[in-house]
Amino acid sequence: FMMPSIVDKAPVLVAISSSGTAPVLTSKLKEMIEIMIPGSIDKLANLLGSYRARVKDTIANLDQRRQFWQDLLESEIPEMVYSGNEDAAIEAIEQRLRDRLQAAKTGRKMGEVYLVGAGPGDPDLLTLRALRLMYKADVVLYDRLVSDEIMQKLRPDADKIYMGKEQAKPSVGQETINEMLVRLAQEGKRVLRLKGGDPFIFGRGGEELETLAQAGVPFQVVPGITAANGCAAYAGIPLTHRDHAQSVRFVTGHRKDGSVDLNWAGLVAEQETLVFYMGLSKVAAICHGLRQAGLPDTWPIMLVANASQPEQQSLVGTLADMPERLAAQPLPSPCLIMVGSVVSMVAHSPAARLSQTQCWQQH
Amino acid sequence: FMMPSIVDKAPVLVAISSSGTAPVLTSKLKEMIEIMIPGSIDKLANLLGSYRARVKDTIANLDQRRQFWQDLLESEIPEMVYSGNEDAAIEAIEQRLRDRLQAAKTGRKMGEVYLVGAGPGDPDLLTLRALRLMYKADVVLYDRLVSDEIMQKLRPDADKIYMGKEQAKPSVGQETINEMLVRLAQEGKRVLRLKGGDPFIFGRGGEELETLAQAGVPFQVVPGITAANGCAAYAGIPLTHRDHAQSVRFVTGHRKDGSVDLNWAGLVAEQETLVFYMGLSKVAAICHGLRQAGLPDTWPIMLVANASQPEQQSLVGTLADMPERLAAQPLPSPCLIMVGSVVSMVAHSPAARLSQTQCWQQH
Repeated sequence: FMMPSIVDKAPVLVAISSSGTAPVLTSKLKEMIEIMIPGSIDKLANLLGSYRARVKDTIANLDQRRQFWQDLLESEIPEMVYSGNEDAAIEAIEQRLRDRLQAAKTGRKMGEVYLVGAGPGDPDLLTLRALRLMYKADVVLYDRLVSDEIMQKLRPDADKIYMGKEQAKPSVGQETINEMLVRLAQEGKRVLRLKGGDPFIFGRGGEELETLAQAGVPFQVVPGITAANGCAAYAGIPLTHRDHAQSVRFVTGHRKDGSVDLNWAGLVAEQETLVFYMGLSKVAAICHGLRQAGLPDTWPIMLVANASQPEQQSLVGTLADMPERLAAQPLPSPCLIMVGSVVSMVAHSPAARLSQTQCWQQH
Repeated sequence: FMMPSIVDKAPVLVAISSSGTAPVLTSKLKEMIEIMIPGSIDKLANLLGSYRARVKDTIANLDQRRQFWQDLLESEIPEMVYSGNEDAAIEAIEQRLRDRLQAAKTGRKMGEVYLVGAGPGDPDLLTLRALRLMYKADVVLYDRLVSDEIMQKLRPDADKIYMGKEQAKPSVGQETINEMLVRLAQEGKRVLRLKGGDPFIFGRGGEELETLAQAGVPFQVVPGITAANGCAAYAGIPLTHRDHAQSVRFVTGHRKDGSVDLNWAGLVAEQETLVFYMGLSKVAAICHGLRQAGLPDTWPIMLVANASQPEQQSLVGTLADMPERLAAQPLPSPCLIMVGSVVSMVAHSPAARLSQTQCWQQH
């Protein structure tokens, strides 16, 4: 810590340093932290401090004690202190301690499950709620579509269990995941089921939810930015547009048996954008099927891999030439496939060169 | 500093301590600071550090040098680094140094525009990037679909301009909005265009983007949780599900001339969830159209108003009885209409009682 800037609300202290690289950045951070921290946080810290011994005596188990404090901080109590009503805060803490003693007599506590969408990959596209729950969870079940950068935001001491889900590789089956979620929650854990994109768009979150509901496990579902929306924003391609598309459809290219069993005629609609998830291995079949169903050879199609991440890659072409383009320049899986007139906007928009680093226009 | 929590984005380090009084409060502060600090602040610090000697040589006066750094931090440069475009950031810093050396100011400075999706209404569903840009903007153009709670998160001294967009009421036209965005940016302002949901799902973000690109205004698009995803998560209804729907389609019920001009036959697809945006006034026409096109009278349909907000309200029924139900119990606009087999899951899921406070199961 070279020359730190200090925010002093003793007993709460925050020290900020840039290790000498950028002093003005340090001052700026100090200013932001001062704005963010409530003015009376010193009073809150002292009040909580005065209860430490009592809480330790009441709740012997470390995890449970930690949860007690976290629940307290998530409650209305801090706001009572900040607004000057310390008596009400004390009364509320006493009530929580009484409830706690009561609960200890009535047996084991049930945990809970958070089904959380982590968005397309950029940690900046996490929602505030997702980030808060990532901090709260005791154990995390995650799959391949969650980026490393996002994994780094988890509580360091949380158990992290990889669920696989790589195509064509053995991975943990959905049944097993469902069972694990229930079992861990029944052990009293706060379980985070972290899924790429949105849990309810091809995320099989529905099956997990059904299992949890049947087992009587409390759960919460947190939506995430689905790949199509993330991709569109980073590419500067609107999924709907008055001149191009009055509707948008998300379709999975992935079938249980590996085939592409789609009703092509039903997929061809006027003024509509089509987005295929998990269809990289079926690009040729998709292009062929849509042309057979009546879309022109010149119809625009775009493939995007690693949407919203620094390694984002893409290919733009037509239904006729995309299979060849892809063969010449293979993309990694998973890959999003966007089909429709809106894709042609990519050429008009200098912002749309389809990489995170290029979402700024150059002049 | 007893037992500090460390936010480590070396060379940037933040240490937080409560001097032993309240360790969980310390963790909470760490979490808040991690939310606030951009993930790539380390890159920014290193980049600024690499310029320290050059800037010192170029600007001898200490006050002026400090001002140079402060201006730089207030500029678009940090955001370029955060979004991965370090080359553009370097070029911009070089340009600033050249301007400085020549003492030939370029005259008016160009601002920038952020097209940001604010999500369905719950401020907890804002993305980290959205929140950061809300703090940064000098002027905010917002419309009716952005909730009051979200508006309270804007920088207090930012100019806030209401764009209306209430159905059947006079509001600022899209042309005027486009022009305002360009004009404000040309005045050097950082302009936030804050839109409900996602800017590229029926948000007319595409038209704004085209105008900005044509005018050469730098912009950034930040995706948001679209209403369908927010609604689905809060209702516990997956938009796709192996047993119910292999695809999902978002359609607008709103037409320029007020009519419902939809190709009903084309909207009826096997194993698909349909979501209509802005269709409250057309519920009867939608139910009639879909039945005529072959969906059964008993097909499930759900209406959700104020999705994800405390005042969320909903109606569940069938294509045959929904118009009557709605007449008996009117809902406020805007309202989302979900049609499909997945809606039947709402009855099975105690989590699906469709209010923010009820998204937790009670036992």
